[in-house]
Amino acid sequence: MIDFRSDTVTKPTEEMRKAAYLAMVGDDVYGEDPTVNQLEKIAAEILGKEAALFVTSGTQGNQIAVLTHCRPGNEIILEEESHIFYYESGAVSAFAGVQTRTIKGFRGAMSPDLVEGAIRGEDQHYPETGLICLENTHNRAGGAVLPLENMKQIYDIAERHNIPVHMDGARLFNAVAATKRDVKEFTQYCDTVQICLSKGLGAPVGSILAGNKEFIQKARKWRKRLGGGLRQVGMIAAPGLVALTTMRDRLSEDHENAQLLASGLASISGIKVVNEVDTNIVVIDVSELNMNSTTFVEKLKEKEILAGTFGSNLVRFVTHFNVSTENIKRALQIITTL
Amino acid sequence: MIDFRSDTVTKPTEEMRKAAYLAMVGDDVYGEDPTVNQLEKIAAEILGKEAALFVTSGTQGNQIAVLTHCRPGNEIILEEESHIFYYESGAVSAFAGVQTRTIKGFRGAMSPDLVEGAIRGEDQHYPETGLICLENTHNRAGGAVLPLENMKQIYDIAERHNIPVHMDGARLFNAVAATKRDVKEFTQYCDTVQICLSKGLGAPVGSILAGNKEFIQKARKWRKRLGGGLRQVGMIAAPGLVALTTMRDRLSEDHENAQLLASGLASISGIKVVNEVDTNIVVIDVSELNMNSTTFVEKLKEKEILAGTFGSNLVRFVTHFNVSTENIKRALQIITTL
Amino acid sequence: MIDFRSDTVTKPTEEMRKAAYLAMVGDDVYGEDPTVNQLEKIAAEILGKEAALFVTSGTQGNQIAVLTHCRPGNEIILEEESHIFYYESGAVSAFAGVQTRTIKGFRGAMSPDLVEGAIRGEDQHYPETGLICLENTHNRAGGAVLPLENMKQIYDIAERHNIPVHMDGARLFNAVAATKRDVKEFTQYCDTVQICLSKGLGAPVGSILAGNKEFIQKARKWRKRLGGGLRQVGMIAAPGLVALTTMRDRLSEDHENAQLLASGLASISGIKVVNEVDTNIVVIDVSELNMNSTTFVEKLKEKEILAGTFGSNLVRFVTHFNVSTENIKRALQIITTL
Amino acid sequence: MIDFRSDTVTKPTEEMRKAAYLAMVGDDVYGEDPTVNQLEKIAAEILGKEAALFVTSGTQGNQIAVLTHCRPGNEIILEEESHIFYYESGAVSAFAGVQTRTIKGFRGAMSPDLVEGAIRGEDQHYPETGLICLENTHNRAGGAVLPLENMKQIYDIAERHNIPVHMDGARLFNAVAATKRDVKEFTQYCDTVQICLSKGLGAPVGSILAGNKEFIQKARKWRKRLGGGLRQVGMIAAPGLVALTTMRDRLSEDHENAQLLASGLASISGIKVVNEVDTNIVVIDVSELNMNSTTFVEKLKEKEILAGTFGSNLVRFVTHFNVSTENIKRALQIITTL
Repeated sequence: MIDFRSDTVTKPTEEMRKAAYLAMVGDDVYGEDPTVNQLEKIAAEILGKEAALFVTSGTQGNQIAVLTHCRPGNEIILEEESHIFYYESGAVSAFAGVQTRTIKGFRGAMSPDLVEGAIRGEDQHYPETGLICLENTHNRAGGAVLPLENMKQIYDIAERHNIPVHMDGARLFNAVAATKRDVKEFTQYCDTVQICLSKGLGAPVGSILAGNKEFIQKARKWRKRLGGGLRQVGMIAAPGLVALTTMRDRLSEDHENAQLLASGLASISGIKVVNEVDTNIVVIDVSELNMNSTTFVEKLKEKEILAGTFGSNLVRFVTHFNVSTENIKRALQIITTL
Repeated sequence: MIDFRSDTVTKPTEEMRKAAYLAMVGDDVYGEDPTVNQLEKIAAEILGKEAALFVTSGTQGNQIAVLTHCRPGNEIILEEESHIFYYESGAVSAFAGVQTRTIKGFRGAMSPDLVEGAIRGEDQHYPETGLICLENTHNRAGGAVLPLENMKQIYDIAERHNIPVHMDGARLFNAVAATKRDVKEFTQYCDTVQICLSKGLGAPVGSILAGNKEFIQKARKWRKRLGGGLRQVGMIAAPGLVALTTMRDRLSEDHENAQLLASGLASISGIKVVNEVDTNIVVIDVSELNMNSTTFVEKLKEKEILAGTFGSNLVRFVTHFNVSTENIKRALQIITTL
Repeated sequence: MIDFRSDTVTKPTEEMRKAAYLAMVGDDVYGEDPTVNQLEKIAAEILGKEAALFVTSGTQGNQIAVLTHCRPGNEIILEEESHIFYYESGAVSAFAGVQTRTIKGFRGAMSPDLVEGAIRGEDQHYPETGLICLENTHNRAGGAVLPLENMKQIYDIAERHNIPVHMDGARLFNAVAATKRDVKEFTQYCDTVQICLSKGLGAPVGSILAGNKEFIQKARKWRKRLGGGLRQVGMIAAPGLVALTTMRDRLSEDHENAQLLASGLASISGIKVVNEVDTNIVVIDVSELNMNSTTFVEKLKEKEILAGTFGSNLVRFVTHFNVSTENIKRALQIITTL
Repeated sequence: MIDFRSDTVTKPTEEMRKAAYLAMVGDDVYGEDPTVNQLEKIAAEILGKEAALFVTSGTQGNQIAVLTHCRPGNEIILEEESHIFYYESGAVSAFAGVQTRTIKGFRGAMSPDLVEGAIRGEDQHYPETGLICLENTHNRAGGAVLPLENMKQIYDIAERHNIPVHMDGARLFNAVAATKRDVKEFTQYCDTVQICLSKGLGAPVGSILAGNKEFIQKARKWRKRLGGGLRQVGMIAAPGLVALTTMRDRLSEDHENAQLLASGLASISGIKVVNEVDTNIVVIDVSELNMNSTTFVEKLKEKEILAGTFGSNLVRFVTHFNVSTENIKRALQIITTL
């Protein structure tokens, strides 16, 4: 099987497994797990924030961010196909009680004017705008990198209105690899950021939420309420630390593989690549093949290739470190003959 | 003062005041207020639903509808400038815990295709679509009447997907007056409906929420939780009953006045009427007068005319039974000479 | 019918009806209803608070208080049979998301030591104690007056821990009448207070929530979310104003009637008065009559006397201004011969 | 250091570490992690339920249970010092919106009569009773085993009223070890149960929530909302599987050690053992030593013994598999000479 469904499917490396095996552990609810403490310290440094918190998933990191920044009766501004809105089961409204104000972006980037226009004034008919959320890279925009200039403009607006900015950076290191910038150039334009250890970086489990100390202290309590306060968490923090410290540089390989895949797919009759491929995601339209995405995905599966539907005619391929250049070539051969 | 800010400013008539004075009352928490019982019975009949509930405001009626139909983790589909989303302070997410999935409408009407496309499938990443909300007439679309055909199409989709439909009919009787149809032609395409007694109908306070018996029974409890379970409510139900039974027919006067106002305003240099005037709302753009809406509204106020800002360059005028044809003419004279 | 079920059943007086008939009104959502403005001003003065807000019920006033003081994840301390916990349908947890920490009181008064012991320290396992609620007089303690000394002690503790105190004073003026103290002697020991216009004071509808200006401003928005933002509210504020300004002094008559009723009931074989009668509530135990409370209440009803069950063997009688001394005497005669 | 603070501090065994190292993994969000699938299957069998779900903590399992069983406006009945009420930061009210109705138990066991008395009837003033929670063994009752007969009686009442029962069985296997019964004898008296892999069983991380298939399917979605949907979860499920399958039998050693500790402590002048020691928890009162619990715990720490405060004069000791009989003896020697 060549598995293009998501970079979440990556298996832990031998080094990660060994790290788990050997991990120094303690009870993290008492703050005594040395491995998670080290991971949180290093993550905060890398991300340029005062403090960081290990959480069990990107969703949990995002939910904690909203719970910590906001309160019921607030409204949050976010892109209309952002993960927080689209893929988190309505949890921000169910738990944090916030209303979602969505804006249609261009390649995942919301127009700063539209963002500013969506900020609510003072009026008893209006919820208070409590948070602006960005997603970089943007999954449903096909892994598009949010331009730094766009982030800066939105952050300036947010600061002027005293509204915090949270970045869902589940794939932020893909943006870093694609732009060859330092991650801090991105994180300077948000108050809090969540990054996943378990997508392109390949850790089995876990994400990091980072922000200032006061924020992280409050976040820790919301994590406990969500059931994310763990015990000998070093067992999963250790592979996460390997992921964070050794796997970032290799993301450009995934991007090269995605380019290879995209150009190959584009040359197949009936298949249209619909996204500009910035990072590790390729989205194709299969409608000219006279089948819908579900059928196409099933046909692929018969040929031992896994990909995901992304709309009724759209199919998403994600490259990652368990997909080699050889795999890409073989997959293209197979798809050509479908 | 000629007050065009809203039809909510209407003062109770002598008949309404007398009705309050003479109202037979009892304790409605025990179900013993004869006047509110009569009002609820008559309202249910008029609206073609099994049962009805008196609530203290349109917002309360809408909130109860969402609380009764949905549960946290649900998503509701509604127009992106609908009252429930735009003007209810984020209460649907704060109280009912539902996520708002907004769709840009055309004159307040959502495309049935977009509605169907927004319904979520079964997947643990997705909230369950719990309700579709319509608004007729649509306030921020300038009092536009939602076409019956549009309602029917959306209701058919909703039924096919087993999703209830709630209509915010705060100004439903304006749609009735404008189309000369029976109100039941509209309410047949929704499971529950809220109508205001206190807008065009002129009652001092109150709205009606109608639906089937089981729904209204559950709604009664949510009303209690919201603090809307009142005692000798006949004192306000009585004027509401006058409003509901005697004031519907005169809404067409407001519509004629709105036409008069719109054509007058349209002929004033620098003023552009931006909405098609279906009912009692006229929205103008004042940007060519080289002022923003706030300045324009202040200038009007100096001349004893009240209107409301409706965006940075937009001003809304609402006609109602405390604005006469003479008032319209005088207002136009004044605005011409601003 | 002699109706002892509750003081909520009182019918508006002729003066209240006239006040409604003649009320000066405006749109209160715009802050323009002169009658409600006057009511709120006078209520604030009487209660010794900076500002006050008209709400449609005691439940609504209490809910708004909790919503404004607290946020989800907080815990509130309150007596285990207090109205907020016992009779408000779980709304404080459903809407404000607070956990209820209940303490068994003596005649409605919680021991200050137990209150202080229930305040949570800082620990990620604990909710933050966000509010202490008192109820005076205490309904389920049989209308018992909370002693000033008890209130003072709890308020001192609360201040020391920086926790606000809210008083559910639905029947606070009964405590005032019973103790012949000024109401401000009570309200000095709470940050916010809710009093009902519609119980002993006899207004058809409405309560007052009072506190400092900042609190009331925030409360106004929560009222809007709950659907309690009304329009020409003067129609019900006017009778409320009559109630507040003219009906407080006569509450002592209800208390005398309650004494008469209690001593009469106590002398009937098989009936035991179980509460010390401080104010207008008499609770009896009917178990020695070999029937449960439901049967007893039904038998009373056949004889045109209404009372309420208050537990499986307990029956509650409430005196109010629609129950005269004559009524008490007649009721006693009837009950004697049951 | 001899660490008596909690059985949560247990370090993973060599076998657990190896299991993590070698774990077969997949993406559990796609249902493809063979190890967690095996763990869930075995756990369901052991617990006598149709299905089971791996969650990251006991708190998460309990929260998911309440979220799945209940909806806002419900009330849950639980013991007044139960973990869900006392130690979960008010999360059941913050997230599930339920009101907590607490009952004082005897050694953690609620009187069936009180439970039945606390079930709410139908009335719009009342929340609906949505769940009864039991805790076995009961932490704050000093690890007391809830008697089977008590569980049966409560379960019978619950069934009669159509109310589900959830058991917080974080330390259920301690009850099993103490009574030498099959775990199914306990779980037959609840609809759902949560058990911890990371307390006495010694796994680094994780708990199991079990119930019928429909419940677990819904629970899976609430887990996703809480951020508990993990990826290559086999890395922690594998040591959890070792814990569940190999560590249950050795819990009786902890109980013997607790007995040894209790009798030793009881013989020290000034120390009073306050609980009957059923399982692995010993609670002492230190007030006769003329110090409070905080001071006592600090003094212990200086001597390299860790224990936890459990109230202002109470100190809790928990035995577990990282505390040997030798450790107990040494600890007693040290405490004697304090």
